Amino acid sequence: MSDSKPELYEPAIETLSREEIQSLQLKRLKWQLKRCYENSAFYQEKFDKAGVKPDDVRSISDITKFPAVTKQELREEQEKYPPYGRYTVSPPGDWREIHPTTGTTGAQVYNIWAEQDVKNITLWTARTLWNFGVRPGDVIQNAFSYGLWVAGMSSHYAARELGCLVIPTGATPADRQIDYLTSNHATVILATPSFALYLGERLAEKGVSTESLALRVGCFGGEPGASVASTRKKIESGLGIEAFDYYGLAEIGPTCASECPQKNGIHWVEDHVLVELVNPQTMEWCKPDEAGVLVMTHLTKEATPMIRYWTNDVAKLDLEKCACGRTHARSPGGILGRADDMVVYRGAKFYPTQVEKVLRGFKELSDEYRIELSTDEKRSTTICTIVAECLGGDIDQDQLKERVRASLREELQVAPAIRFLEFGTLERTTFKAKRIEDRRKNN
Amino acid sequence: MSDSKPELYEPAIETLSREEIQSLQLKRLKWQLKRCYENSAFYQEKFDKAGVKPDDVRSISDITKFPAVTKQELREEQEKYPPYGRYTVSPPGDWREIHPTTGTTGAQVYNIWAEQDVKNITLWTARTLWNFGVRPGDVIQNAFSYGLWVAGMSSHYAARELGCLVIPTGATPADRQIDYLTSNHATVILATPSFALYLGERLAEKGVSTESLALRVGCFGGEPGASVASTRKKIESGLGIEAFDYYGLAEIGPTCASECPQKNGIHWVEDHVLVELVNPQTMEWCKPDEAGVLVMTHLTKEATPMIRYWTNDVAKLDLEKCACGRTHARSPGGILGRADDMVVYRGAKFYPTQVEKVLRGFKELSDEYRIELSTDEKRSTTICTIVAECLGGDIDQDQLKERVRASLREELQVAPAIRFLEFGTLERTTFKAKRIEDRRKNN
Repeated sequence: MSDSKPELYEPAIETLSREEIQSLQLKRLKWQLKRCYENSAFYQEKFDKAGVKPDDVRSISDITKFPAVTKQELREEQEKYPPYGRYTVSPPGDWREIHPTTGTTGAQVYNIWAEQDVKNITLWTARTLWNFGVRPGDVIQNAFSYGLWVAGMSSHYAARELGCLVIPTGATPADRQIDYLTSNHATVILATPSFALYLGERLAEKGVSTESLALRVGCFGGEPGASVASTRKKIESGLGIEAFDYYGLAEIGPTCASECPQKNGIHWVEDHVLVELVNPQTMEWCKPDEAGVLVMTHLTKEATPMIRYWTNDVAKLDLEKCACGRTHARSPGGILGRADDMVVYRGAKFYPTQVEKVLRGFKELSDEYRIELSTDEKRSTTICTIVAECLGGDIDQDQLKERVRASLREELQVAPAIRFLEFGTLERTTFKAKRIEDRRKNN
Repeated sequence: MSDSKPELYEPAIETLSREEIQSLQLKRLKWQLKRCYENSAFYQEKFDKAGVKPDDVRSISDITKFPAVTKQELREEQEKYPPYGRYTVSPPGDWREIHPTTGTTGAQVYNIWAEQDVKNITLWTARTLWNFGVRPGDVIQNAFSYGLWVAGMSSHYAARELGCLVIPTGATPADRQIDYLTSNHATVILATPSFALYLGERLAEKGVSTESLALRVGCFGGEPGASVASTRKKIESGLGIEAFDYYGLAEIGPTCASECPQKNGIHWVEDHVLVELVNPQTMEWCKPDEAGVLVMTHLTKEATPMIRYWTNDVAKLDLEKCACGRTHARSPGGILGRADDMVVYRGAKFYPTQVEKVLRGFKELSDEYRIELSTDEKRSTTICTIVAECLGGDIDQDQLKERVRASLREELQVAPAIRFLEFGTLERTTFKAKRIEDRRKNN
């Protein structure tokens, strides 16, 4: 944990009291609900069906009266009213960029950024990079994919806003990325945590010392990882940097939550997004320290605003002022997993990030792993096997297995089976790693 | 040829008289030479060695006293003084983006855009798109690669500047591009001419009628092609659009020349770039209507300005006012070829674009071709063979060969051999097509 107290990028906004934040959010929420109701048949129908009107909102908690929006609903809406559905709210002349979801779980959903949306996203991403310690004059190697994906473009805009120099490497392969790192003296790298781990592996294999690099800061998003202490440590030592986690999603926007130097959670951009944490069983707001599903409402988004978007991402939420001086709510431990990535095994519930945390504490194991779910044919029950890679060398695998199992039991409250593979067997991903392999019969 | 007289984007700049253009250029040239001499050891050494000083320039033609800069020279300079050589002129704090050359012919050369360079490039690319008929509200599918390459980013910025909506598809594969074209009703497409031809082929194979698309305008760059009448016709009918050619190169910038609705050449952005046409044998300025090598000088570029950059690209230059109302000089027929792509065969000299022009006039042939150079072992002379693809069907290949050979002889003043392949044999390129295959012994 760092003791430094850096100056803030927008102190007036970032240190508002909880009451001031809620007052700002309420004002913007009323504006947003009103324009959605008046300009979007999609929202009008939803609100009418639920028997709610924008005027019903008198405090932030009144948002719970409004119906949530799911990704499946957006898909069906866009299929029925192609191409963008009826939830575009600003006039088409204001639209500037289309950024679809990646489509990994079904048909893509199109999201649109209006001119003002591009400006807001640029500013809040600049704020994020600043909070990571990025400063004017930094040389930023941007290894986020450019184009359709939100991460590449938004951080490129933000870097320019901050007065940095960008090497827009995008989806350039790892070895060429390393050439750029060494030749152009990048001080900051932006990438997915999976790709950062792979870059670290390749650097070691090529015998490039991190001492020879100018890298100082790493900004990692696109999938959970950098918030997991053991993963962060591996990334940091692999690249010789201080690593920061940030979170975004195409439907809401890039970098809507990010770590501060305290690294005790990801702070939400509460002036632009209203964050709720909902218990998926009771559909009520979570109690303090309870993990739940993030539900987000756009407070400033103009083109395709989301009202109570059900992200399916699981986190906790802490409203206490942070030691960094910022008052914006934060999610300790970052994103804990996907609601549908939750593994239910012998009564225990856990997420891939928890497995990751344990495995990355073992220096005998590589950074790759899978959680394999299969069917025990005799008992018709689920078998959960953690598949990991041994780095080789003189290792007593049975003894290692026992130590890993003990650590897993402590973290997960249940002991899955363990299978070791040789180093390099599991497929490396440069984008979003898929951790769960569900081979169960009824699946 | 179109009779329309659209309003100009920056009429005050685009309709200056020749004297006014030269006066503006002279003022900017003096500023540029002075700052290069004072801030760049690279230019200082070059100018001193040539015995010239910025003050020696009293008219535009005095630029010829200054030494040219070659790509090889930039490579050696960057190797000797890594990473950027000593020809950066603005302070590093002003730098915003690095765009290397593609490195197809050797080590990459890094080019830097300062904040003001990004602004200028954005504005002159917006001017270019406007001249193609792109207007606010257009939906632009940008199939230029994003990131390191100059074309993707600059046209993205320009589209936003104009108030258009961009689908930043970048390097997305052809069939997904077609999905976006059909789903999102793009009215404008940006791509290389090779990729545009391929998209047209795929549309036909998939049975998608161009009538069903909203496409109206195509902007093609990255390689010559759209200026070749027969290629333009194929692209236009394949995609159901009006096609425009534009030209840029990483060292100078994207879109520094582009067609107007008259399509009688590519107009240069003469307020930002000083264009000379040099006879590579005599090293003197070309006579009117003589083809020569384009030599370019940055008039406004701040970060890595080029003084007399030897592009190796061959063109003609016409200073007459165009029927479109613009006075900026234009190169009729666009870029004719690379100086080192010039084929010398039995005393005749020709460029791949001339072969392309002939082949694309035959509907029995596909869009792909190669110019194969080999050695006649007995005579130790060069054999030049044009390799093309027959589309199949009931064709008398011998008779077709004779007709193609006659047309080639007329265009090239020499008759190369011809070999036909089956459709689909030659590799399709989505980036820059390589047309010459040199298999000669001494090569």
